Order: sequence, then C-alpha cells, then structure tokens
Amino acid sequence: MNTPEKYTVIGAGHGGKAMAAHLALMGMKVTLYNRTYDHINVIQKRGGIELESAEGGPHGFGKLVLATADIGEAVKKAQVIMVVVPSSAHCDIAQIIAPHLKKGQIIILHPGRTCGALEFKKVLADQECTTDVTIAEAETFIYASRSDGPAQARIFRIKEAVPLAALPAVRNEQVLDAIRTVYPQFIDGVNVLNTGLNNMGAIFHPALTLLNAGWIEATHGDYQFYIDGVTPSVARVLEALDRERVTVASSLGIRARTAMEWLKMAYDTVGEDLHEAIHNQPGYYGIKAPSTLGHRYIFEDVPMSLVPIASLGERFGVSVRGMDSIIRLACIVHRTDYWKRGRTVDKLGIGDLSTDELMLYVNEGVRN
Amino acid sequence: MNTPEKYTVIGAGHGGKAMAAHLALMGMKVTLYNRTYDHINVIQKRGGIELESAEGGPHGFGKLVLATADIGEAVKKAQVIMVVVPSSAHCDIAQIIAPHLKKGQIIILHPGRTCGALEFKKVLADQECTTDVTIAEAETFIYASRSDGPAQARIFRIKEAVPLAALPAVRNEQVLDAIRTVYPQFIDGVNVLNTGLNNMGAIFHPALTLLNAGWIEATHGDYQFYIDGVTPSVARVLEALDRERVTVASSLGIRARTAMEWLKMAYDTVGEDLHEAIHNQPGYYGIKAPSTLGHRYIFEDVPMSLVPIASLGERFGVSVRGMDSIIRLACIVHRTDYWKRGRTVDKLGIGDLSTDELMLYVNEGVRN
Repeated sequence: MNTPEKYTVIGAGHGGKAMAAHLALMGMKVTLYNRTYDHINVIQKRGGIELESAEGGPHGFGKLVLATADIGEAVKKAQVIMVVVPSSAHCDIAQIIAPHLKKGQIIILHPGRTCGALEFKKVLADQECTTDVTIAEAETFIYASRSDGPAQARIFRIKEAVPLAALPAVRNEQVLDAIRTVYPQFIDGVNVLNTGLNNMGAIFHPALTLLNAGWIEATHGDYQFYIDGVTPSVARVLEALDRERVTVASSLGIRARTAMEWLKMAYDTVGEDLHEAIHNQPGYYGIKAPSTLGHRYIFEDVPMSLVPIASLGERFGVSVRGMDSIIRLACIVHRTDYWKRGRTVDKLGIGDLSTDELMLYVNEGVRN
Repeated sequence: MNTPEKYTVIGAGHGGKAMAAHLALMGMKVTLYNRTYDHINVIQKRGGIELESAEGGPHGFGKLVLATADIGEAVKKAQVIMVVVPSSAHCDIAQIIAPHLKKGQIIILHPGRTCGALEFKKVLADQECTTDVTIAEAETFIYASRSDGPAQARIFRIKEAVPLAALPAVRNEQVLDAIRTVYPQFIDGVNVLNTGLNNMGAIFHPALTLLNAGWIEATHGDYQFYIDGVTPSVARVLEALDRERVTVASSLGIRARTAMEWLKMAYDTVGEDLHEAIHNQPGYYGIKAPSTLGHRYIFEDVPMSLVPIASLGERFGVSVRGMDSIIRLACIVHRTDYWKRGRTVDKLGIGDLSTDELMLYVNEGVRN
C-alpha cells in the first residue's frame, strides 16, 4: 500500500486542531470533522488553521481540504481517521461513523484511554458494520497543545515515543508503517491491553481529585494539583492503585510500567517513592488543580480508565478494592453509576473470554 | 440499692479529669485510674484536680480519694466505674479489669462509639469473667472539656440530654437510677445498638478527613474542618454514608436519627441539605482541621465506629459500599487492616445471630 495522504481528523478541540494543522503542514490532505459546525465555521471560511509552536516546532497556516459536520462527507475519502475526542465520546463516534466506513481505512484513537479500541470495535459490531477497517489506539496524546482562537492551535511539545497498538496487534506494523512518514514518534505498543493498562491518568487523576475534593471545591482549585495535592498519604493511595493496575496487567501476562517507571521513562524523574518522585518532576510545578469536581479527571477517567482496569481485575480474580473505593466515591459525588456507564468487560463483549482467549483476540483477532 | 457514692474514673485524659473532679465536687468518693502513673503523679500529690468551667459551671478543687495506676486498687471498692478512654482502648481496659470486678458493679463507657459495650462484654467473657456486672455506654461524651495542666481540667459545656444504654437494655433504668443524682442529663438510649448506630462521628470524621487528605497534610490542617471542608460534593458523600447508617439501623428495626435530624436536635440547626445545615451551625466556625492524618478521626473512628456499622450492614444484607470505600482508603493511608482491627460482628461474637436473636441479646441479655 502506498503511504496514505488522506487524513480525516475527528474532533476540533485543541488537540484535533493541532493535529489537523500539523498534518496539513506536513503535506497531507486533511479533512476536519466536528459534530457542531459552529466550532469549525471559521476554519472552513478561512480554509485552514493557524498553527503556532514552541521554538523550533511546526508552525504556519495548515490549509485543510474541508471542515465539515457531515460525518459521511468527512470519512468517505479518508485513508486514516484520527479520532481526537474525549474517550467518553468514542462510543458515539463509532455509532455515527459505522455506516460510512470503507474497507482498508485505519482508525486511530488519540488516546484510547483504557479499552478504547475494544469498545470502538464492539460498537461497530453492534451496528452490524462488517467493513474490514483497522482500529488502533495511542497510549497517550502525542501533543501537549492549546487553542487560543477558533482557527488557531498551539503545540507546546510533541512527545518523542508514543506506544500505539492495533486491534488485533498483528496489524500494529501496518498502522505504524502507514503513518511513519508523518509520525515517526509512534512505536509498537504490543497490543491494546498493553496501551490501555499503561494508562497513568487512571491512577493519578480520579484519586488525586477525590482525596482533595474539599480543597478543590472550597478554593476552586487554587493550589498546585500535583505538588500540593500529592502529600505522603495521598501518594500512598496512588501507589496502592498503581499496584492494583500492575497486578491486573500481570494476571493477563502483561508487564505494565509502574508509575515510578513511567516517571523515569517520560521525564527521567526518580525518587524514593511516588511522593518524592512527583516532587522531583519540575513539570508538575505550577499546574493548578481543576476548578471544580465536574471535571474530566472524574467524568472521563473514572468510566473510561479506572472502571475497565477494575473490571478486568474483577474478571480475573485480582483484588481492586482501592480502585473500587475511588470509583464508588466518584459515583456518589457525581450521583451516577460509573460502573454502569463505564467500560466493563461485559459492555466490551469480552466478559466471557478466558485470559488466553482474550489475548488471542487482542493479538490475532481470533474469537472462538 | 442506695445511690452509689463510690466512683472510679478510668483514664486521666482531659475528659477523665473533668469527670473525676466534677463528681468529687458533687460529693462523690472518686478514685482516678490511669495506666501511666506519671500522668497522675501530680494529682495524687495534690490530692485532687482543679476544675474550671465556663460561667455558672462547676468549679473548684475536686478532692479525690486516690489516683492510682493499680487497676485492682482502683476498682475494688468502686460502685460505678466510668471508662473515659479512647474506644480503641476499651478492649485493653476490659482485659485488665476482668479479674478485679465485683458483683453489682456498673461500668459505663463514655462514650461507647459503636458496639463498645458489646465488645467490653465479649472481652470479659473471653477472660472467663463471670461476675455479674452491668456494662453500659453513653452515646456521646457528656462534657466538652480540655486540660491545661497535669492536675487541671476545664469544662466548656455539659450536654443536656445524652442517651445511655445498658447491655442488656432491661438494666437501663437501674443504671440511670444509680447515677441520676449526679448526672440527670443521661436519658434512656433504648439499647446499645441504638446508641451505637446514632454515632455521628462515624459519618463525619473519617470521610471528612480523607476527602480532604491532601489539604490536611499540605497545610497541617490550617483551614476550617467543617466550614471549609464540607463542600457540596463532600456533603454528598457524608449524606450517602448517613443513608447507609440509617439503613443498617432499619435492618435491625431501629429508627436511627439522620445527621440532619441530629443537627436539628443537638444544635437546632436546619438547612436544605447537609452542606447548608452544617454551614448554618455557628459552632462549626473556627474549628480547625486535624494537623495530620495520624488522628483519632481515622485511627479510632474507622475501626470503632465505621467498621462495626458496616459489618452489621454486611451481615444483614445492607449495601455499605460508601462506608467500605472510606474504610478501604483509611487502610491504605495508614497501612493497616481496619477491618481486622475493628469491631466486626465476628469479633464481637454476634456474627451468628439473626436480627431477632441480636435484639433479644441486647434487650434482654438472652442468648440461645
């Protein structure tokens, strides 16, 4: 297959705009889709997005082929479909995209959080979409970006090594090959359980928010989220959740990175324990807490990150009582049932698979 | 029986000293026991405790019969034994007191927290103590008190109506009669499950501490524990725990007070919800948070208040997932197993009783 040139970016938040502009500046033919046309109206009128970057980074006017709120229009000519929406919207995107997919298209979730590709594939199947497309997910979002205007985006940083996995993993290489010219940063993420179980936001975000619930709400987040909020006791809870996550991975034969290993890998930060390591990471200084508990750290990270890990743990006999405590408190605070709304193994259609069957499915796409 | 005059107060913290001095000033013959003699050395030398009070309250030098660290000496002549120690020490006190008890003595826990009298009785039985004593518990501590010196105590407030229950409840009247002259404030608390399940500290203390864990530790408690710490989301968790507590009581046929009803009763404070009611209670303004998570709000209130309520709930099929979440987080933060250390129905020796059998036991002392 020739290297694809036709990209469609789904979602015109800051991340989607940054990616669309960057891809265009790299010479790709880019279409941008957003559900609400109002948000992309200016982009369509101007014909593109103005991209700025920290020094040396990509910048300039990224000329787009089209900005549209018509999903059929958006995907019909795409070779690669980049889904850059909150993971809680993956299900909706899968539903509306299903009737329009064409054989051979590659769909990449940026990022999948946990079990994003599995959910996407399940929803396509529920829609009776039998088109042979390849679904993949990135472990984290490649950009640190912001948007200061309707047709503007700013990239602060492009991550250097982002694991990516296809479902099934036998297609990893195909996906990496397809996007290598534009994104050499993506590396082989083994399979979608590896990318999903290495989701650090699952560990850090909900617990750190809930164990500082009063502080966030009383001050509207006027303190440093990590530096002030991660005290020794809070860090102990994060470490306990992290051990549960790594143990869930182990039960599937997966060697997930610990939070400490991830801090070392991502930021070259070390310490005696998580409390010390987080305080040794200069990037955490100055980051304010969310101004409210009505924040994606709970309403996205609990159902799309923590619930699927805990659900895998319960399925395979791993104690996830720490995670369950955090999920339960989130349910109470938000007066909702995140177990019901979240990505459980049953909802993902994998609740009846043994570990071997699950690995066979994610690695080779084979289901008995 | 004549009105008892011989009291022994167990525990020389601020509460025990206030009670001993007050009883002495009311003409009782009072012995004060403390495990560590160093803490009562000055009291024994001076022969008593200097009591101060808010205006109009009891004050003066409370002359004691004896201050001793010898438990046998302390209890041998006592008619009423007032146990004024943290509830986590009830078990120890029961163990050391067991060989010295005499028929007819009354033992009152101030307060029992939850299931204090049940634990005390179980420990006496485990010590093969068959002496016919009466064990009772107060729902809350009758004084708000402090101590500013080794032989000093200060009473801020004496509560006006404190429920008290004996185990079994058929002895409530006997206990109330025995102490009525000195403490007309005690009222019939129905039975020890009523007093224990009306323990508001179980609801307020651990959750309010843990949902502000980072804030407490980062600022050493430099904020108002209730006024700043009880935000709308935190109040929602308190309300959920409170519903669980009231439902556990219901499963036993007990109509426990809700936190809202308690605020109305104790402080004549009302509001639309718990958040509003707590902010309408002037007494909460100015109360600082604990300076550390190594505080009795967790290490006492989790095992001695929350665990027994949750354990009763699990025994009788009531969902206590909110409580369990708080207990679990406390276990992680303090690196201990509060389920194991706490007053579970099994540890209390009541795990095999049906609700009818349990009520028969607490009301009439009958076990089949």
